[in-house]
Order: sequence, then structure tokens, then C-alpha cells
Amino acid sequence: MTRTITHQLDPDLDLVLERIVDVPPNLVWAAWTKTEHLKKWFTPAPWQTVDCEIDLRPGGIFRTVMRSPEGQEFPNVGCYLEVIENEKLVWTAALKPGYRPQNAAPGVPVFTAVILLEPHAGTKYTAIALHADEEGAKKHASMGFHDGWGKALDQLVTLAKTM
Amino acid sequence: MTRTITHQLDPDLDLVLERIVDVPPNLVWAAWTKTEHLKKWFTPAPWQTVDCEIDLRPGGIFRTVMRSPEGQEFPNVGCYLEVIENEKLVWTAALKPGYRPQNAAPGVPVFTAVILLEPHAGTKYTAIALHADEEGAKKHASMGFHDGWGKALDQLVTLAKTM
Repeated sequence: MTRTITHQLDPDLDLVLERIVDVPPNLVWAAWTKTEHLKKWFTPAPWQTVDCEIDLRPGGIFRTVMRSPEGQEFPNVGCYLEVIENEKLVWTAALKPGYRPQNAAPGVPVFTAVILLEPHAGTKYTAIALHADEEGAKKHASMGFHDGWGKALDQLVTLAKTM
Repeated sequence: MTRTITHQLDPDLDLVLERIVDVPPNLVWAAWTKTEHLKKWFTPAPWQTVDCEIDLRPGGIFRTVMRSPEGQEFPNVGCYLEVIENEKLVWTAALKPGYRPQNAAPGVPVFTAVILLEPHAGTKYTAIALHADEEGAKKHASMGFHDGWGKALDQLVTLAKTM
């Protein structure tokens, strides 16, 4: 009953960032799952993550508040779906905590994020954003998915090396 | 990591059917999770469920095709979220299989379904439909949630007694 699912990627609907990083999976996992760590790397500077709430179980809340350099705040609430320590983390913005459906905010592409960690002289890190349609995937790409998630990962690695 | 979540109900957003039925939880579970059973009870007659696909794991597909008495077919695709044998089944129409976000069909309220089974001289059966907003909950109620799910449960119980 607890077999996990393999994600079949669709190049028209999914955005993928894959990279080898020179920190082990358990530190990448800690950076993703402890609020005190996540706030330090999650948003590419000069943006900041000023608040974060993590209830690390399927159905649990994943909430962040990002602040722009101009001081505007952007709250996000999502729901964890799969939590496999040091291996796989899945959450979605399509649901609120407790699996309640959530209406999309205007102009914001709704996605499910899949983070995969594999030991590989460090970690083979794969971040996938799954979208409902091509429009959402294109919008997310044009908003800077690859650059933004890549810069955030650089920040994560820098932080992990201090842990 | 596998603690399950307790569902905090909101009377403005949730629809609930709660009933004691005189068949044991394992038969109710079988009726919900085996395609050959589900097709026999899932849709209140004279509607029919003419096709069904079940991949019983978090992220797996739950697909049905309902047929109206006039012969019009209504396909539905959703995604399982929690699968706890004989106790709890959760799926959502907000996601496709593999947790991909899914756009709502026009006019159809998107909901997450939570089915809870407790041993109780038979089964204490609780079916909950969680909605994003009051509009969705009201629409689902006006479409006949209580009557429809109640009649389907009657059909389930009749079937379970033949198993």
C-alpha cells in the first residue's frame, strides 16, 4: 500500500532542474525540511523568505512568505504529499493542508514540486515542477524557474556546507 | 514520517455523510478498491459506472466513467492521496495521477474525498467532500451530494452482503 509512484515526465508540461551537488542527501534533506534552514536559502537574494511553516507528513502544511527587495510580501500555502526521508519530497500548491482543494491566485501558475535526492559522490539533485497545462509550464519558465531554482540551490549548498 | 493527518471539518466548505452500515470494514474497503465491485455500486441507478481504473497507492489513478440514463458518458480522473487498508481512503479531483495539477471541468465543483471506516457492529462509515470555497460546497450540495452518496452507499451495502 505504500509503494511510491514513478513520475513520468512530459516535456511540454514539466520543468526540471537536475544537478550534482557536493553535499550529502541528508544535509539537502535537512535544508528542505527544517524551517530555520529553509528560510536561509529558499528565495534567491535579494528576495527573502521571512516566514515558514512545515508539518512534514502527507497532508501537512508547507507555508512560506517571500519578501521582495521592495518589501512586498507573497504568502504561499501548499500541502505535502510524499515524505520519504533523504530521498523524496513532494508537495503541491493545488491543495491546502489536509488535502483541501485550493483556488489558484490570479496569474500564478499552480504546480506540484517533486524533489528527488540520490547519493552520487554528494547528491544527484532533481527538482521537478508539474503543471496542468502548457500555458502554466511556459509561464513558470518565463518567470525564471531554472535561474531561480538554480540560484536557490547554490544558496542551499553554501548553507549545507556550514551545517 | 507516515503519521496521517486528522481532517478538521469546516461546515461552510465540507459535505459529510455519516452512517452505520451492517457490513464489516473489510467488505466496504473491497467495494471501494476493486474495480469489479466499484462498477456495481458507485453510481445511483439508473446511472451506471461503465468503466473504472484503480491504482491503489498515493499518486495512483482513480478513474471512472459514469453513464446517464440517456447514454451520455462523463469521465472523471483523480489521484489517490492516502490508502490505509480497511480504514482510510483519500483521493482528489484537483490532481491527476502522479500528483499533476488538474484544471477543473466547467461547472463541476472540485473536491477531495475522504472515506473513513471504523469497526462498530458493522462499520461506522464517514464520507467527506472537501471544497476550496463555499460556492463549490453549495454547488455540490445542490447537485445532490447527500442523496446521491447515500443511495450509492445503499447499493454498496447490498453488494457487500453478496460477497
